[in-house]
This record gives sequence, structure tokens and C-alpha cells, in this order.
Amino acid sequence: MTNYKHIFSQAIERLHSEGRYRVFIDILRNKGAYPNARCFHGHNGPKPITVWCSNDYLAMGQHPDVIAAMEEALHDVGAGSGGTRNIGGNTHYHINLEAELADLHGKEAALLFTSGYVSNEATLATLAKLLPGCIIFSDELNHASMIAGIRNSGCEKVVFRHNDVEHLRELLEAADPEAPKLIAFESVYSMDGDVAPIAEFCDLADEFNALTYLDEVHAVGMYGPRGGGISDRDAVANRLTIIEGTLGKAFGVMGGYITADQMIVDVIRSYAPGFIFTTSLSPVLVAGALASVRHLKASSAEREGQQAAAANLKRLMAEAGLPVMPSTTHIVPLMVGDPVRAKKISDILLAEYGVYVQPINYPTVPRGTERLRFTPGPAHTEEMMVDLVAALVEIWSRMELELAKAA
Amino acid sequence: MTNYKHIFSQAIERLHSEGRYRVFIDILRNKGAYPNARCFHGHNGPKPITVWCSNDYLAMGQHPDVIAAMEEALHDVGAGSGGTRNIGGNTHYHINLEAELADLHGKEAALLFTSGYVSNEATLATLAKLLPGCIIFSDELNHASMIAGIRNSGCEKVVFRHNDVEHLRELLEAADPEAPKLIAFESVYSMDGDVAPIAEFCDLADEFNALTYLDEVHAVGMYGPRGGGISDRDAVANRLTIIEGTLGKAFGVMGGYITADQMIVDVIRSYAPGFIFTTSLSPVLVAGALASVRHLKASSAEREGQQAAAANLKRLMAEAGLPVMPSTTHIVPLMVGDPVRAKKISDILLAEYGVYVQPINYPTVPRGTERLRFTPGPAHTEEMMVDLVAALVEIWSRMELELAKAA
Repeated sequence: MTNYKHIFSQAIERLHSEGRYRVFIDILRNKGAYPNARCFHGHNGPKPITVWCSNDYLAMGQHPDVIAAMEEALHDVGAGSGGTRNIGGNTHYHINLEAELADLHGKEAALLFTSGYVSNEATLATLAKLLPGCIIFSDELNHASMIAGIRNSGCEKVVFRHNDVEHLRELLEAADPEAPKLIAFESVYSMDGDVAPIAEFCDLADEFNALTYLDEVHAVGMYGPRGGGISDRDAVANRLTIIEGTLGKAFGVMGGYITADQMIVDVIRSYAPGFIFTTSLSPVLVAGALASVRHLKASSAEREGQQAAAANLKRLMAEAGLPVMPSTTHIVPLMVGDPVRAKKISDILLAEYGVYVQPINYPTVPRGTERLRFTPGPAHTEEMMVDLVAALVEIWSRMELELAKAA
Repeated sequence: MTNYKHIFSQAIERLHSEGRYRVFIDILRNKGAYPNARCFHGHNGPKPITVWCSNDYLAMGQHPDVIAAMEEALHDVGAGSGGTRNIGGNTHYHINLEAELADLHGKEAALLFTSGYVSNEATLATLAKLLPGCIIFSDELNHASMIAGIRNSGCEKVVFRHNDVEHLRELLEAADPEAPKLIAFESVYSMDGDVAPIAEFCDLADEFNALTYLDEVHAVGMYGPRGGGISDRDAVANRLTIIEGTLGKAFGVMGGYITADQMIVDVIRSYAPGFIFTTSLSPVLVAGALASVRHLKASSAEREGQQAAAANLKRLMAEAGLPVMPSTTHIVPLMVGDPVRAKKISDILLAEYGVYVQPINYPTVPRGTERLRFTPGPAHTEEMMVDLVAALVEIWSRMELELAKAA
């Protein structure tokens, strides 16, 4: 007789024994004063904290245009959509946002999903299923949602070394020339902060007649003259078959999407269970996202503020000898290399300094590369950064961790 | 060389040739006046319509408490959560709603997901993966999201005939007594409107040491003294291992959840990729759902209004000789049996009568059982129903479809 309780308790015990059992920090952000927030941790009532690990990278979640658009939609049409896109849940807001996103990426069409996770999972699984014998070439650091989509497609998967053009070429050369092929990768890798060689991957796709799928979730809103992501910045959007993005990070709201030519969007719209059989995004969210996308198409101030803040924090950390990783983007990862130590540093920061930064552990990053991941934005001040670095140096010293010699 | 365009265009052509290519109707509901809405179909500007196919069953999407709670949260914390539950996206609203949902179903704990689809997919896939050799017994009419979760678990799946206790018993008897087992089913089947024999399935689960998974998405808010679903109405919630529900139908907002004992919730929370690697629900939605759940726990007026409306519409249709299906719930399906005809009736209703009811075709229902599915609620008046039935009778006659003799 199966002892279910025993099996489940063992599964939880494994996490404790590896020091990676996750405790969720209970917070409320302060609209209009972000990155300030309230922390309910320990249930001793709210205590003020500064948030350093949000993916609301540009603080658009509190932008007046976004808030106003959501309030207007709330009073115009109500809370939820009431149905799937096909059955009662297709609002005029959805149509308008899809047109706006298609334009953002210079594509014919776009399709909204309830999340970036679902957009990756549903699109990759469906696309590959429609192409018998398809081989998917996948970057080894691709996000869990892409991995899920690839697995669920049932296709052959070939993993190439992270951002390695030569390795991808070797694998493409070794594959059946007649087989349909899809190259799936991200632009900004969110835990390391490095960037894919998009143009080179597109060259290979052309040479080997492969489709391309680019996840831009950590880049949309933040890169390119209109916020179309790294493919916008590098002027290669037109070379990609599908660009996927999110409304839940730099755009500050919630939801995911793909953009592509009309036929591919129609195919996904018509065949993807994760799109068809789910209540559509609340029109309140869609209205907010629409305002956010429109604002960031026209305004570069938030992007510039974020880039300045990230450069500043990296410099301050390096000058203090802290092990900041060589990110080329807005992501500022600080290597710790051990889950227990990473959690302890995070706990001290929250308890003693009112600094909230989450430890990142396996399976989000490989074991042995546990880290703290900071996401400074335009609303993080110089003073906050100086205080943060001083706190980190104190904790590094208290825990007898090594600091590099100042340059 | 693969001709991708040809493959994709063939996939779309298949849908056209079967008469099941889906055209989304472009609408905006009128908050405060639902089921009235505006239709943008044909882009000749909005035209007033009456919505008959929404899953906002109790019109809670426009309830003043829900709207007020969402507006308050919007101004308190902003648009999105800014992160996954583990990394910056765990708000006090999420904690409170999970406590409220656990209480609603009499369980120790609850876990929120971005949608009901994701809650089914992620929970079933993860649970079964954690139980080596698990066999999942699945009702043949289970929703696409449950089917996806079961497939993605990689477990052995055994399908039993719809709501058939004896068939399930036979299959359990034939299975390895030592293997872990999970029985997965729904309470209200949304396209037929019939109800599962929950207690009998629980008896079998006890006898064969199986876990049970009940999808209550078309019942939460609407059945039971506190809106806990059919398992609340039948007082069997305590016998089920996991009860899954949605915030996007009767609760009028968006999102999904499971409730179970603390350990199972902790296991899913800790291992399900579809939960871990996704931006959490916007706190604005969570606040609205919290208000909705609390209201429907205390108020039965909406439930009673809906039951009266459904009974009334079924009676009026039957009296007119229309082929209303034998639903025992709030769902009022009208059998057509052909996708082209179902779409034509729907098109005439919208164009000539301002009535919006979506044709339901494959794969949502089996081929040959295409239908119109009406969901009258407390806001649909007697006059609306009389007008609707008159319109249907006229169209039935125009299209030379058969009407039964009046009883």
C-alpha cells in the first residue's frame, strides 16, 4: 500500500536538507513610493523595507498612466473577462493591445496569453507538434517555461551550449537537412544578465532553413528605441520568426504574448490548448498593459534611468570588492555559491537593514551558483545604493566571506 | 526542405473545411448593466448586445464590493506583483486569499495559480511525477487542462466512462494494488451541465487507497451554502484530497487555485514549474477575488437568482420545443449537432437580434454534438428570456430545423 504522506514528506525533507526550502516573504509595495514597501514577515505588523529584487524593472506598475487606464477599464467593463477568448472573453482591449504589440515588434500580428510562462509553453509545444519530425535546438540556459513547452511538444530536443554560435552550427550540421527545425533562445538571460548573439543565430537559421523563437521577457520595455527589446536595439526583429514577451516585468502588469506573421499567430490561436481553454486576461490588466506599452514606446527616460542605476550599482559593488558577476545588462547578480549562505545574507539584510533581495537557488540557477540578484531601477536612489553596499560589506565581513582588493 | 508556410496554411485550411475556424467576437461589457454589452463586430462601431454565454455566472465581475476592492488595491500597491511568488511577488493579498479559499473548502491550505488551466496542469503533472508508478484514472470528459497535466506527468492514464462508478471500479480492480493511484474528475461538466457522483468516487478511493482530485471550476461560488461548490452542497469536501477551483468564473475575476492539506500544498508550491516560474497574480485581481469569495460565502441571493433563471430558461425552451439538453445545473445547452449550422444560428442571433451566444464546437465538445450554450444568471430578466426564445424559434423555423411538439 502506497504511503502517500511519507512520499510527500520526504519530498519536502529533501528541500530542507539541501537548504533550499523556500519561504515566501510577505509584502505590500507602496504605490507612488516604490521601491519602498511594507513587510509582514513574522506577522509583527508591517515594517518598511526597500525592494531590490522586483521585475517591475521600470516601476511602470505605479505609473499614473497605467493606474488611470486600469481604473477606467475597471469602471467601464468590470473585473474579469468572463470567458475564454472564443467564448465571451474577447474584449476590444485585447484586440487593441495585440495590435500595439505587433507594431512594437514590427510583426503582422500578436497573441495574448495569461502569462509569459503559458505563452512559451503553449507556443513551443503547439508549433513543434504541427511540424512532424521537428527538431528543437534549445540554449542550455533557457527558462523553465521554454523547457516545459519543448518537452510537452514531444519533439527531439538538441541542447546547445549557452550563447555558443559554433556549437549550434555543429549541431545543425549534424541534423537531418530535411527535418523541420526551430532554434529557441532568450535575449537577456535573467539570472546572469548576459545577451544572446541574435543576428548570428538568425544567420544560422537562414543557412539551415530553421525557424527562430526568441524570448524577450527580460528585455521588452527596456531595450531598443521603442522598448521592443534587444531585437529592437540590434535592429534584427524582422529576422526572427516569433518574438515572445511579457506584460508582467518592465511593463509592470501581468500576462504574456507572442508576435509573428499572421499565419503563425493564427495557427497558435487555433491549436494551442493553453491559449484556447483558459479565461482570457482581465480587461483591467489589458488596459494597463496597453497604457504601459504606449508610454514606453514614446519615452526613453525610464530606460535611461535604469541603465544608469544598474551601472552605478555595479560600480559601487566592484569598488567595494563584492563579487558582482559580469552582467552586460540591467541585472546585477552577486555570486555567493551556496544556498544556505545566500539565504543567511538575505535574512540579515531584511531583518537588520530593511533590504529585500531574494536568494536565488536551484532549480532557478545551477547548484553551486546560488546568488543574490539585484534589479536597480530608475526609482532606486544613489543614497539607497550606498546604504545597500555598506550593508553588504558589513555582512560579508561578519560572515568572514572574501572581498576582492579594491581596484 | 521543409515548407513551413505550406504546413501552417494546411493546418488553418483544415479548420475552415470542417466549419470550425474560430472568429472571436469583439466586445466590451457594460459594468453595472451586464448582461448588456457593446459589440465591435465588423468594426462599424459599437452596437448594443445581450451576453448569454459568459462564465461570469453571477455577475460578480461588476459587484460593487469587488470593484471597490480592486480600486483600493490598485491605489495601494499598483498594477502588477512584479515577480514570482518567491522573488518579490508574494503580497499580503495572496496570503489572505489563500487562507480564505482554504476555509471555503474546509482544507488546511490553498495555493493560487495564474489560471485554472495552470492549476490543473501544474498540480496534476507535479503530483503524479512525485509518485513513481502512479496511475491516473481520468473521466473521459475531463477538461483539456486536466488532460494536459496528466499527459505531462508521463504517468499511465486510465480513462473511465463519464461519471460511471461501475466502470471506474472495474478499472481500479484491474490495476496493480501496490501502485499509487489518483482519481481525477470534475463536479459540474460545463458543456453538458451534469454532475459527478462525488461520494461514490470517494468510496472507491477509500477502498483502493487512491488520492482524489476534483475540479470544481464550474461550481465554486454557485453551489453549497457558502459557495464551496458541489462538494460543499453534498458535504463531501473533507473526503477529497485536492479541490481545484477558479477565480475567473462565478467569482468574476481571474486566476485559479487548489486547496488540500498543508503537506500537499507545500509539495506543489515547492515542485511545480507552472507555479514557481511565473509572475504571480496581480494584487489587484487578488483583492477583487478576495472580496468576491467573502461576499458569496455570506450571500446566497446570487446563487438563488441564478438557479431560478436557469430553471426558467430551460422551461421556456422546452415549452417552445427547442432541443434543450438534460442539464441538472445552471448550464443550458441547446443541441445543434453540426458546426456550420451552430455557427449560422449564432451569427443570425448576433446580427439580427443583438443576442451573443457562442457556438461550441470541436475540440471543446465531441464532433457531432456542436451546440449553443447559454448561461443565464441573476441579471438576465424574464423579458430577455422570452425575447431570446422567440428569436430561437424564428431561426429554427427559418432554417427548417425540427421543433419538438409542445408538452
